Amino acid sequence: MDRHIPPIARWQLAERAQRMKPSSLRELLKVAERPDIISFAGGLPSPYALPVERLRASVEQILQRDAVGALQYGPSEGYTPLREAIAARLSRGGAIIRPAQVLITTGSQQALDLVGRVLIDPGSRVLIETPTYLGAVQALAQYEPAFREMPSDGAGLIPECLDETAMRDARLLYVQPNFQNPTGRTLPLERRIALVAQARRHGLLLVEDDPYGELVYSGTTPPSLLSMAPDDVVHLGSFSKVIAPGLRVGYLVAPEALMIKLLQAKQASDLHTAGITQRLAHALLTDGEYDAQIDAIRLRYRAQCALMLKCLAEHMPDGVSWTRPAGGMFLWVTLPPEVDSAELFEDALARGVAFIPGASFHALAPRANTMRLTFTTATPTQIETGIARLAQAIKARLHATAPCLAVS
Amino acid sequence: MDRHIPPIARWQLAERAQRMKPSSLRELLKVAERPDIISFAGGLPSPYALPVERLRASVEQILQRDAVGALQYGPSEGYTPLREAIAARLSRGGAIIRPAQVLITTGSQQALDLVGRVLIDPGSRVLIETPTYLGAVQALAQYEPAFREMPSDGAGLIPECLDETAMRDARLLYVQPNFQNPTGRTLPLERRIALVAQARRHGLLLVEDDPYGELVYSGTTPPSLLSMAPDDVVHLGSFSKVIAPGLRVGYLVAPEALMIKLLQAKQASDLHTAGITQRLAHALLTDGEYDAQIDAIRLRYRAQCALMLKCLAEHMPDGVSWTRPAGGMFLWVTLPPEVDSAELFEDALARGVAFIPGASFHALAPRANTMRLTFTTATPTQIETGIARLAQAIKARLHATAPCLAVS
Repeated sequence: MDRHIPPIARWQLAERAQRMKPSSLRELLKVAERPDIISFAGGLPSPYALPVERLRASVEQILQRDAVGALQYGPSEGYTPLREAIAARLSRGGAIIRPAQVLITTGSQQALDLVGRVLIDPGSRVLIETPTYLGAVQALAQYEPAFREMPSDGAGLIPECLDETAMRDARLLYVQPNFQNPTGRTLPLERRIALVAQARRHGLLLVEDDPYGELVYSGTTPPSLLSMAPDDVVHLGSFSKVIAPGLRVGYLVAPEALMIKLLQAKQASDLHTAGITQRLAHALLTDGEYDAQIDAIRLRYRAQCALMLKCLAEHMPDGVSWTRPAGGMFLWVTLPPEVDSAELFEDALARGVAFIPGASFHALAPRANTMRLTFTTATPTQIETGIARLAQAIKARLHATAPCLAVS
Repeated sequence: MDRHIPPIARWQLAERAQRMKPSSLRELLKVAERPDIISFAGGLPSPYALPVERLRASVEQILQRDAVGALQYGPSEGYTPLREAIAARLSRGGAIIRPAQVLITTGSQQALDLVGRVLIDPGSRVLIETPTYLGAVQALAQYEPAFREMPSDGAGLIPECLDETAMRDARLLYVQPNFQNPTGRTLPLERRIALVAQARRHGLLLVEDDPYGELVYSGTTPPSLLSMAPDDVVHLGSFSKVIAPGLRVGYLVAPEALMIKLLQAKQASDLHTAGITQRLAHALLTDGEYDAQIDAIRLRYRAQCALMLKCLAEHMPDGVSWTRPAGGMFLWVTLPPEVDSAELFEDALARGVAFIPGASFHALAPRANTMRLTFTTATPTQIETGIARLAQAIKARLHATAPCLAVS
């Protein structure tokens, strides 16, 4: 039998595949999963927040009443009653959203993939926040855009600093207005109004990713970009944070002309999202306990967020600052400029605590002295212990990098 | 408020999206779903073959024993016990398949999408059978390859007629060796041996799509291409035909160097396949009744296939021929050359019966006098009535197109 050339050289890969890099984050998350580690790394919901009993009751009903519907091939657009329920809920936001504008996706990660597929050619300009959600960068990067980071501060994108030429040329601007991943920041109303006006003026499509919008802990969120400009926005939503990520049910809302293409891309991607999981999302969304479930999650996460903020204030040395999110799952810590959070990660791990270094959330120019902390997954006791350990690791590193100051 | 440019002109779409065309097949299948129509059109399993009771029992157990595992985020590779069970089952075929070679996908449609994404650049040559599976063409077409149809006959691809230059240049050859969609034909052992030898000689990657391999009604299938050349084949499998399509659980098996890239593409596509549906597939694959379930499906479909063949022989006029599949879901009918099956579709619909015109299964040069009939979905009574009606429609059209012959 003829002997083979080594496999790596055997097939010519597509250019986009040659550019794909193994995710360092993935390796890092694997380490963070070790049972001896207190992890603030993964963006996971609390296991205690999963509505297991309601799902168990619902799946029983679905397989009794609609087994063939749930198990046979289904429409690529998604399960009609689920699309109707999503449209009705989003229409509370002001603008009327029709079920025909809603496409069910296999998690909102797939929505990002479809948006990239339909809108991005190699070299197309794509505008993003600084920092921004890594999963979005990974999904869109497959279609080989030229990313451009837009000026952002503690409140998010700064509309008056957006480059007019970039806006005119760009295929889309990707933004998470509510409790952004990784920073936890929320784009204020006046910036939303300004952003929408600019987008309309320049014919720029806004891709509004809103997986955390329901997780409000103080005040209310400003109106969505979708509600302000339904003809200019593709809006992405998810049930991963309020029901369960393992269902892999998300959705997008798009203007009609884009919907046609997004639907064709969806059909070619996986035909349709699983019938059972779509019906489970529908059952939980409409069983009358959905808002109560969200309230229970808010109560839990609000307390965990407050506790983490309290522990940070107690333990962190001078020169460390952090965001105070009004919702979501994450807060963002800025370290003194001399601390590289990737190096700190190793120290912290040795002390039994994990986070995500901030460099992971920049498409272009990483800032090394930042990190993301998730406050939803760990228990209160773990939060207390973990933040204390993390502060020790930071202090040790500050001590190590500035020995002269330490004795002054 | 400024008035908008009409939506279609507002955003610049990616080139691949501009080329996407609405699926005529989709419209056609919608018509075929009307309750007054006997449909041989869709490629659906029989609703009577869905293992509803076993799924109900399994989902109950999963949510009792492993709720958090099923509902939380999971690994992109898939649920490890499912990968192990698939590898063990495939290893029965001769070659040892390791779980690390198995990637769980959201239906095997997603596997096709991932293969295209990792291997196809615009203009890359991709070799296909004539006719071939439409869903594969749609998935791969998104990556803008130059398709080339390979010489095929009633037994499938003809290895000795394959173009050597084309094989050397091509990124992949897509083939369904068992009970092919749409023809029902099976590639004989000697052709498999020749094909594998040629692929190795020219460094051509074979993409072996095998959704119907378990649905054997007479004899046995030859060894898979995977078992003959695991280093040269990406093998796609599915639970859609033997458990339920609505689960959206499929898989691919790939050589290690490709797996790395396919996994990265999977992660960017939808993070992972739903936890519940993967565990359901695993539960049914390993509960000891899987082979009995397959036997029951075979028994049903074998009878329906035989009945359709009998009805065709009874009712069809001279000049109509059809394949005699040894398994699968489809048979392929060739009409007299003067009959256009797209026109016949309208006549048949008026008589209350539907099929898929054969032109839908050609990427390049459609042959108009062919059609695909599905024998799995309709009941025996519907098969008898439907084939009789279809024969009437064909006779009427032959009569209409050849009035002189009719009186001779």
